[in-house]
Amino acid sequence: MEGIKVVQVVAGEDVASAPKGEEGKRRGVAGIFYAFKIAGALADELATLDEVKRIAEKACAHVRTMGVALTACIVPEAGRASFNIGENEMEIGMGIHGEPGIRRGALQKADDIVQQMADKILADLPYEKGDEVSVLLNGLGATPKEELYIMSRKLHEILKGKGISVFNTYVGEFATSMEMAGASISLLKLDAELKRLLSKPANTPFFTQFQL
Amino acid sequence: MEGIKVVQVVAGEDVASAPKGEEGKRRGVAGIFYAFKIAGALADELATLDEVKRIAEKACAHVRTMGVALTACIVPEAGRASFNIGENEMEIGMGIHGEPGIRRGALQKADDIVQQMADKILADLPYEKGDEVSVLLNGLGATPKEELYIMSRKLHEILKGKGISVFNTYVGEFATSMEMAGASISLLKLDAELKRLLSKPANTPFFTQFQL
Repeated sequence: MEGIKVVQVVAGEDVASAPKGEEGKRRGVAGIFYAFKIAGALADELATLDEVKRIAEKACAHVRTMGVALTACIVPEAGRASFNIGENEMEIGMGIHGEPGIRRGALQKADDIVQQMADKILADLPYEKGDEVSVLLNGLGATPKEELYIMSRKLHEILKGKGISVFNTYVGEFATSMEMAGASISLLKLDAELKRLLSKPANTPFFTQFQL
Repeated sequence: MEGIKVVQVVAGEDVASAPKGEEGKRRGVAGIFYAFKIAGALADELATLDEVKRIAEKACAHVRTMGVALTACIVPEAGRASFNIGENEMEIGMGIHGEPGIRRGALQKADDIVQQMADKILADLPYEKGDEVSVLLNGLGATPKEELYIMSRKLHEILKGKGISVFNTYVGEFATSMEMAGASISLLKLDAELKRLLSKPANTPFFTQFQL
C-alpha cells in the first residue's frame, strides 16, 4: 500500500504436519530461524529482493524440523492451557500453537525421543552420509538448557553414526510457544552458499553471533 | 591442589535474602552475571588476578537483585516441585533453589509487582537521581520474553521518573531455576570503569555481545 515492493516466502519444514510429497501443506516452525538468518545475511550484502527471496526459499527447502511437547502453552487472552497433556504423557510432532501432533503416548527417555525424531527428520529430506548440517536444538519455552544439551548429545551421536558431519550447533530458545515444555530439532543441510551466509555475524535484539 | 593460584569472590546481591546492614548474609542470584561479564573482560586484558578479584568484588557491590516466582522448579533427581505455589499465588523474593521469599500472596498485575521490586531495590543501594544503570530482566526458566518485556517497560518508566538513566538493558534468561515461572530484576550502578568493561565484546557459549 505504500508502494514498497514486497515478496512472500512461505516456510513449511515441520515433517510431522504433513507427509512427504505434500510439503506444501506443512507448517513452518523453528527451522525458519535459518531462513531469517541466511536471507538477512544476503540482504545485508545489498543483494536484490529476488536474490534474497531465492536464498530464503533455498534455506526453507534445506531444513526439516520435528518437535515434542510435555505441556501446552497458555495463550494470554485465554488464560488457560490450549490443550492438556497428562502428567506422564508427551505429544510428538505437535505445532507451536497447539496443533495436534502425530501421536500422544507415555513419557520416554530423552535418548529414545531424540532417536524417533531424528529417524523421521533424516529420512525426509533425506540427509545422507557425507552431508554437512547445522543443528538447532530449540526449547519451546519451559525446557531448561541442561535438557536441551542432553538431547543434543544423543543427536550428535546419531549423526556421527550416519556419517553426517555437524558444522555448528545452536542450543537455546529460538521459536517458543510461550511457556510450553518441550523442544524441537531442526537440521539444515549445508552447501557452500548456505554455509557462507549462515557464518556471517549478526547483531540483533533476538540473535547475536560473531563470524563462525 | 595443582599449584594454580586462585582467589574467591563471594557474591550476595539479593535484597530479599537479608536486610540492609547484613549484606554478608545475602545470597547471590542473577546479578552475578555482571561480575562474570566484567571480571571476564578485565581478565581478557591480562590484568593481574588481584585486579580481576577487585573488579569482581566491585561489580558485586554495585548490583542489587530481587525476584518473583509463580511456580517452583523441579530438581531432576527429586522429580517433583521443591515447593508449591497455589494457582493464583506468587512468592516475592524467593531464591533460585526454592529458598523462601519475603512473602507469598495473591497474584498481582505485572506493573504492581515491578513497582514493589523496584522500590525495594532502589532503596537498598541506594540508586539516586543522576545515577546511570544497566538493567537485567532475567527469566527464571518458564517466563516468556513477552512478559519480561512487559516488566522492562514498567521498570524503565519508574527509573525515568526517578531521574536514573539506563545505559543498556538485557532481557532474557541469564540465571534460571530449571523451569521455574518467574523473573528477577537486577540493577548495576555504573561508573566509568564498570561501563567500559561491561561494553566490551564477549563471545561464549552462554553469552554473546558485540561492543556496546
